[in-house]
Amino acid sequence: MSSRLVVIGLGPGNPDQITPEASRAVAEASHFYGYKPYLDRLELRPDQTRVASDNREEISRSNAALEMAASGHKVAMVSGGDPGVFAMAAAVCEAIEAGPKEWRDIELAVIPGVTAMLAVAARVGAPLGHDFCAINLSDNLKPWDLVERRMVAVAQAGFVISLYNPISKARPWQLGSAFETLRNHLPETTPVIFGRAAGRPDERIEIVTLGEAVADMADMATCVVIGSPETRLIERDGKPPLVYTPRFSTGVAK
Amino acid sequence: MSSRLVVIGLGPGNPDQITPEASRAVAEASHFYGYKPYLDRLELRPDQTRVASDNREEISRSNAALEMAASGHKVAMVSGGDPGVFAMAAAVCEAIEAGPKEWRDIELAVIPGVTAMLAVAARVGAPLGHDFCAINLSDNLKPWDLVERRMVAVAQAGFVISLYNPISKARPWQLGSAFETLRNHLPETTPVIFGRAAGRPDERIEIVTLGEAVADMADMATCVVIGSPETRLIERDGKPPLVYTPRFSTGVAK
Repeated sequence: MSSRLVVIGLGPGNPDQITPEASRAVAEASHFYGYKPYLDRLELRPDQTRVASDNREEISRSNAALEMAASGHKVAMVSGGDPGVFAMAAAVCEAIEAGPKEWRDIELAVIPGVTAMLAVAARVGAPLGHDFCAINLSDNLKPWDLVERRMVAVAQAGFVISLYNPISKARPWQLGSAFETLRNHLPETTPVIFGRAAGRPDERIEIVTLGEAVADMADMATCVVIGSPETRLIERDGKPPLVYTPRFSTGVAK
Repeated sequence: MSSRLVVIGLGPGNPDQITPEASRAVAEASHFYGYKPYLDRLELRPDQTRVASDNREEISRSNAALEMAASGHKVAMVSGGDPGVFAMAAAVCEAIEAGPKEWRDIELAVIPGVTAMLAVAARVGAPLGHDFCAINLSDNLKPWDLVERRMVAVAQAGFVISLYNPISKARPWQLGSAFETLRNHLPETTPVIFGRAAGRPDERIEIVTLGEAVADMADMATCVVIGSPETRLIERDGKPPLVYTPRFSTGVAK
């Protein structure tokens, strides 16, 4: 059976950060599914079909793509960043598990990409140079108190923290609450990076302290990276500071 | 002053996973520094110079590259994967902070890449589909008890855990000890992925349970991904199972 679904990571948005593997997968597919802004990044040929959908429709989108693949087409599901990080690869797996048994025969391939926190980190130095974690700040699919418990656990343990999906119209207060929580467990001087649209023309990178961080510095396109107590700034004349987390740790800080 | 140092991420090893941005940075540099196996991935021109160094020489390598950049050359430091994840970007920042003030005038650019855990995750489904962390298992630069405390904190909090640098000749017992520790905090049935050389001709991907995981399933080229209590397997006829972590969580499991 030749049915095939490939889940493609398009990277942070700069076309120069799309891997050749991803570009070839785009060239080889006939039917494209995805959130409209990601599909809009592609220049498809007239013989390629696109089915755009809205945000938060991940399961119905996955079902539609799997049905199309099961009927013998070469189908692509596109994601920004890496498809395995808070994106479509998990939604497709959920749909396969819940769907008809035939869907398990579909050849599924996932093409990795540069995820947002890596692109943001690259713009400021090396804030992820030591142990780090990634938390989806959305509480659409998990209770908020779980998000809070996780932030406290990793802040206390000395991880750098990347927050994905920090804010949206439907979730206006969560990021501010996250900063409040983190201020109870990290120094006010901890560097915080607001990395918006890294590598794109509308990029905006801001470096502040945790004491200064407020929610409206972020929007839906922002990845927020919060340092550990060991994250450092290197001041430079006429340039933004470098932010980095040393590779070594004494472990003395709690 | 035109001195420039670019720290380039070459991705997991498959040439198709090198971004065009990284390829262009390689084409534009004149002097290359790096760990020899990473330099060996490049096809340099006769006018390009390479200075290979051994593992664990990150600071002397950074100093040499910064000196060459400060003298006006276009210098590249190459890393496997993403240079910001347990790789050369942090070492270069450490060297800049400790070095002569002129080094802060060097134009520093970091080119992100696909880091190992993303490439490994892509080969099996979507194990990083929910909150996750990355821990450098090497205790060369941090005390082992800190590594253990961090593993316990994130296992208890429900993060998927990616272990980088799991084992080497100089560090033979740490990975086995890590599995022992994690078995005290996670179900024996938790999926564990040994992802060796993902995307390369010598790739080897093994999926076992935490109860079955032993250290000699890994080598220096392996990234080990340990699921959370919510990570699931989808069995398939005639194909390896899919491993994924659902996007949702009830938060009931501790």
